[in-house]
Amino acid sequence: MRNPVLVEVLRGELVESRHHGAVAVADSGGATVFALGDVTQPVYPRSAVKAIQALPLIESGAADKFGFGDEELALACASHGGEPAHVEVASRMLARAGLDGAALECGAHWPLHQPSGQALARAGGTPSALHNNCSGKHAGFLCVACAAGIDHRGYVAASHTVQREVRSALESLTGVGLSEDQCGIDGCSIPTFGVPLTALALGFARFGTGHGLGEKRAKAAARLRAACAAQPYYVAGTGRFCTEIMTLFGARVLVKTGAEGVFCGALPEQGLGIALKCEDGATRAAEVAMAATIARFLPLSDDERAKLDRFLRKELRNWNGIAVGGLRPAVELLA
Amino acid sequence: MRNPVLVEVLRGELVESRHHGAVAVADSGGATVFALGDVTQPVYPRSAVKAIQALPLIESGAADKFGFGDEELALACASHGGEPAHVEVASRMLARAGLDGAALECGAHWPLHQPSGQALARAGGTPSALHNNCSGKHAGFLCVACAAGIDHRGYVAASHTVQREVRSALESLTGVGLSEDQCGIDGCSIPTFGVPLTALALGFARFGTGHGLGEKRAKAAARLRAACAAQPYYVAGTGRFCTEIMTLFGARVLVKTGAEGVFCGALPEQGLGIALKCEDGATRAAEVAMAATIARFLPLSDDERAKLDRFLRKELRNWNGIAVGGLRPAVELLA
Repeated sequence: MRNPVLVEVLRGELVESRHHGAVAVADSGGATVFALGDVTQPVYPRSAVKAIQALPLIESGAADKFGFGDEELALACASHGGEPAHVEVASRMLARAGLDGAALECGAHWPLHQPSGQALARAGGTPSALHNNCSGKHAGFLCVACAAGIDHRGYVAASHTVQREVRSALESLTGVGLSEDQCGIDGCSIPTFGVPLTALALGFARFGTGHGLGEKRAKAAARLRAACAAQPYYVAGTGRFCTEIMTLFGARVLVKTGAEGVFCGALPEQGLGIALKCEDGATRAAEVAMAATIARFLPLSDDERAKLDRFLRKELRNWNGIAVGGLRPAVELLA
Repeated sequence: MRNPVLVEVLRGELVESRHHGAVAVADSGGATVFALGDVTQPVYPRSAVKAIQALPLIESGAADKFGFGDEELALACASHGGEPAHVEVASRMLARAGLDGAALECGAHWPLHQPSGQALARAGGTPSALHNNCSGKHAGFLCVACAAGIDHRGYVAASHTVQREVRSALESLTGVGLSEDQCGIDGCSIPTFGVPLTALALGFARFGTGHGLGEKRAKAAARLRAACAAQPYYVAGTGRFCTEIMTLFGARVLVKTGAEGVFCGALPEQGLGIALKCEDGATRAAEVAMAATIARFLPLSDDERAKLDRFLRKELRNWNGIAVGGLRPAVELLA
């Protein structure tokens, strides 16, 4: 099955580029309420499932043991920009467990937030693993290991207790068995398993509502959702889609980006989960497709619709600030 | 007509992402010798036609008047990295015409070459229009205006004499009339016109051979080709595809990238021109598709084939340097 065009990129009067992809929306009972494209083949969810991967941090008691609040929990679900405040919270999480940035096994990269990278360079600095967009998630993994009193070294390996728990949470939420045959190594070195979009959408419908989860897990999911809604800056950062959308909608929308054009989300009040993948891996198109899916399924006031519109029909400007074109969702995505 | 998959992105055992697109290869007589996908609809060539856009710089006598050698001519054809040597040559070109960076109308952006951007930040600097990847092309435009004694201000406008000459060169090479109806504004603010890939491939077959061009134009094209072959560093920069491929093959291959997944090139000895577009705008896939097209049409020694292979089957490593997957061309692209 070929995936349809999800998003078009215009310049002047011409469609300059096109992004194909697939979208699944499911309810917590497992019914697929909307599907575009091939929603059954496995895709790597990458960072889009960080909120699910953070469940063991709460369920193990580690978050309580180390006194984590909304900032820490939001950062555990984050692909953050490496801004100073993000680095500070990641450091704080590690310090509570008696560790520092040297324990992180995610690798180092320059902050995704360009001004923060430039400030770091200006100060004569170089990036550390704390600047890695995944450092909050990894700090969470380390806290799980430390709270359980197990050796944290090698915590990124599929065979480590922490990754087994993370995998188990993902299997439980999505309802699919994760296979070693469909497993890749993520950018931050942990395993990423192939999961169909329908199953990811179901997982987020459950995560967003607690339906179909045990009481402890439902409470853990609710606590992570509340943390992201209260501190969306710590889930991404300045000017980033996830932060801006959750700032706009609060607890009504949970969204999380992943590398290679994956996006997951939940609309708790509607009882729906969303999972989509832009086939070519483009984040710009995945964001527009997510905005369009939200617009389709979330009741919006006129003011909210107007505010969402700038993500749905994103303007492109050139280096002189001249409007040269924009992105728009394909009609199939619109209601 | 739907475009086929040109390039697959693997992670572990799964194809994680797919890039669709179209490829045209033509000879200087206008025969399309190879086509994949929709090669007839207009695409914006963006920066992939900079070498053609530089023809007026030579033909007008401006390059001779200002004493330009290979470095200046290569930079006029470049999307450079904003490395110090690139900035220096752009400044030198402007100085010869009695101008400086303030005359550039391309806008400013941080150097594409990340270490150069970090060094600039470390020194407390901010980017100027000289760091814009198009500053060499724009310096060339300004030199055309100055040599002709016309007002250079507003040289980016479609109605300015310089852009009229640039447009005329592109129409002459590609054999198509460029239409205001299929015209966008490029990242650097000059017009970019929609041209079918078949016509772009013809244009590069002519540019690479001189066949079908008047003597003066054929000589100008040969001089620009020789400059790019002699100074490929000035066409792109450290570690960049265009620079590395032209360093490997010298005058046997001319390649030039453009924004939104466009790539043009010429194989002068084979009398062929190449034009391709990755439909979703991805440079990573356009590079693999160009490497595959070169491998298909250029006779290669075993050593050359081995060296080209790292562009054709590009390895992906994560932040810890672990090999996690790679890019590979679709079988339809291979011989």
